[in-house]
Amino acid sequence: MKKAFITKEKAEEIAKQFPTPFYVYDEKGMRDNAEAVKKAFSWNPGFREYFAVKANPNPFILDILKEYDCGTDCSSLIELQISHALDFDGTHIMFSSNDTPFEEYEYACKIGAIINLDDITHIDFCEKACGGKLPETMSCRFNPGGVFTLSNGIMDNPGDAKYGMTREQIAEAYKIMMSKGVKHFGIHAFLASNTVTNEYYGKLAGQLFELAVELKKETGADIKFINLSGGVGIAYRPDQTPNDIAVIGENVRKVYEEILVPAGMDDISIYTEMGRFMMAPYGAVVTRAIHEKHIYKEYIGVDACAANLMRPAIYGAYHHITVLGKEDAATDHKYDVTGSLCENCDKFAIDRDLPEIEMGDLLFIHDAGAHGYSMGYNYNGRLHCAEILLREDGSFKKIRRAETPMDYYATFDEFPVYEKLKAEN
Amino acid sequence: MKKAFITKEKAEEIAKQFPTPFYVYDEKGMRDNAEAVKKAFSWNPGFREYFAVKANPNPFILDILKEYDCGTDCSSLIELQISHALDFDGTHIMFSSNDTPFEEYEYACKIGAIINLDDITHIDFCEKACGGKLPETMSCRFNPGGVFTLSNGIMDNPGDAKYGMTREQIAEAYKIMMSKGVKHFGIHAFLASNTVTNEYYGKLAGQLFELAVELKKETGADIKFINLSGGVGIAYRPDQTPNDIAVIGENVRKVYEEILVPAGMDDISIYTEMGRFMMAPYGAVVTRAIHEKHIYKEYIGVDACAANLMRPAIYGAYHHITVLGKEDAATDHKYDVTGSLCENCDKFAIDRDLPEIEMGDLLFIHDAGAHGYSMGYNYNGRLHCAEILLREDGSFKKIRRAETPMDYYATFDEFPVYEKLKAEN
Repeated sequence: MKKAFITKEKAEEIAKQFPTPFYVYDEKGMRDNAEAVKKAFSWNPGFREYFAVKANPNPFILDILKEYDCGTDCSSLIELQISHALDFDGTHIMFSSNDTPFEEYEYACKIGAIINLDDITHIDFCEKACGGKLPETMSCRFNPGGVFTLSNGIMDNPGDAKYGMTREQIAEAYKIMMSKGVKHFGIHAFLASNTVTNEYYGKLAGQLFELAVELKKETGADIKFINLSGGVGIAYRPDQTPNDIAVIGENVRKVYEEILVPAGMDDISIYTEMGRFMMAPYGAVVTRAIHEKHIYKEYIGVDACAANLMRPAIYGAYHHITVLGKEDAATDHKYDVTGSLCENCDKFAIDRDLPEIEMGDLLFIHDAGAHGYSMGYNYNGRLHCAEILLREDGSFKKIRRAETPMDYYATFDEFPVYEKLKAEN
Repeated sequence: MKKAFITKEKAEEIAKQFPTPFYVYDEKGMRDNAEAVKKAFSWNPGFREYFAVKANPNPFILDILKEYDCGTDCSSLIELQISHALDFDGTHIMFSSNDTPFEEYEYACKIGAIINLDDITHIDFCEKACGGKLPETMSCRFNPGGVFTLSNGIMDNPGDAKYGMTREQIAEAYKIMMSKGVKHFGIHAFLASNTVTNEYYGKLAGQLFELAVELKKETGADIKFINLSGGVGIAYRPDQTPNDIAVIGENVRKVYEEILVPAGMDDISIYTEMGRFMMAPYGAVVTRAIHEKHIYKEYIGVDACAANLMRPAIYGAYHHITVLGKEDAATDHKYDVTGSLCENCDKFAIDRDLPEIEMGDLLFIHDAGAHGYSMGYNYNGRLHCAEILLREDGSFKKIRRAETPMDYYATFDEFPVYEKLKAEN
């Protein structure tokens, strides 16, 4: 049973100031979860979560996570800039990018971010961007190739993924970088996305810990951290069992003690780069039913669309929907819930059992706190909405304003047509 | 054999002023095609193409199409605003929306756009938005339900589409609107997307023409136009045979003469709402190879990514790639061509046979003139690039500037963090 973190009354109160649709974030939920993550890995003194900024780049969100000693996981200049502007120091910024532009390595180097190289060919490229001298600490991304499977049938195909280096390359990369004066090393790998099983991190950690032991033997490199990256998922569907981060932390601890401790590598820090797990459940889209339609199926049209939340349209992703104020009503109606994009995929739900929806009802679209706002687009000239933070004391504040037509037209601001577009507003 | 409409030399010349990646549009190609479309339907005195703005909302592009008496097909406030700002008059603006917000009907009504109702429940809604009086001309969108098939196996499922009214509803809608003083009517339907067969429009037209004859008999409505909407595709793959718009126009003429003329309805105007066919082949992304990577597969990393052109990443869509300057070289290398998004789907090509690519080579990604720029997003903090028009005389001009980080940060401009973000730039 999934429960909205906001009541109909509170949502209507917000809607009076900020017209629907809007994003709303649950500060208490975020904080409790960040605390739980920290606790789950507290056995590891160097542990740090580097929050995947792409999941939710809102500075107010990042500032809250910072209080839990989170760093940021960045993969672009913009994400680096946001981190730096928010005073994350270099040790709290992980630059895990791929196909990286020169100027992004330059900037990463300038602000002292930890650089996680995606490919062996990036060594020279990055060295040049860093003014001829690599930073003292460098990380490498590992891709084991082949197929990665979990016991619940989840499978991913690292061999087809564009990321990382082979086993041979990573050893070679360490040696090259040691010869260039790099002193400390990290290992990073990402093997499966949104896994809803407590098993994933432990299994991945086992592979990476063994690799670390081998690499140390083989190259003599001083390995300081192992970055388990992301992949810890959430229960989008009400019938799924959510991950238990305490169990996950404990699973990683077990393999740490089995593999790293006996090898005398008991000072290695564990890093994570979770985005979805840190934020998805603590953000939602609140949208109003504005049309009902009865043709070959029953449709409810809402005032949000795929421009606000793209995952259902593009990936067919399930996002649970609560009709606010009707939490306990029988779900005896079957609807397609649609947005207004001129694309048939713009449906937040298909054949979904819901309570009877009346025009004006507010729908709460769950689990939109990660890869929600940030993955939105302006297709069809649709605009991004505001983001609202629901504080622990029940008050709320705007943490991003809604886009206006003039934002949409901004890239024409040097042309005469801009004045004409302005005149429409 | 697909040919780039620009040489390596010209692309390098543009790149000197506008760093890669950029969109480039072929003015001559656009114009020749727009002329061909006009000619194909010249047998119908009232014919008009209403260009689907969502495919490419650039005002400079719309201005060129306007010279061929094209109108605009809009489905949002922004698209209506752009059309109005560019002085398209009401008869040249078709508002074909769904799940329509109230204020968009208000604005459409204010500027005199032709309103194409998606649903029977919109009659009262739209009437209110129009100040209590519907415009004299109204159109209705038809959804025949069931399954729609073409002889080449293309199938679409109108019965699962959110759009349009049933046969019974459309007759009822006409009667209701006649009783409310509406004088002239249109019919609209969209049954299949990106069909690469000359058969589609003729088959669709046949269905709509028969419907028009029946509706006239049944309701007495004065039907002024039939809108065949979009769906005419292009040959993305080099082995596909492109549609022949002259044949398509002729196919529609035949059914017009078979069905409408004998029914005394020989003054009906044919409208189309093509986006892809009007623009896709005449736009391309030009991007530079910046990385090569050799792991379990061979990768070429370019400086464009899915933020610039999303279709390959999201739909697995094929976009042909020409390595500029190597048009005649043997395609004896197999690459994945990737962008820098932190998403494994960010690949412009998978296992693509291409000539050997060297760092610095310019790649021309074909058929990006429709649903290219407009479908881009800012995921991962990636920015939209500039758009360049290649004129008929070989000169070029910028028709949209590239986004800057400050554009990305604009929705924080009322918060203190904005100044800090500014300081990074």
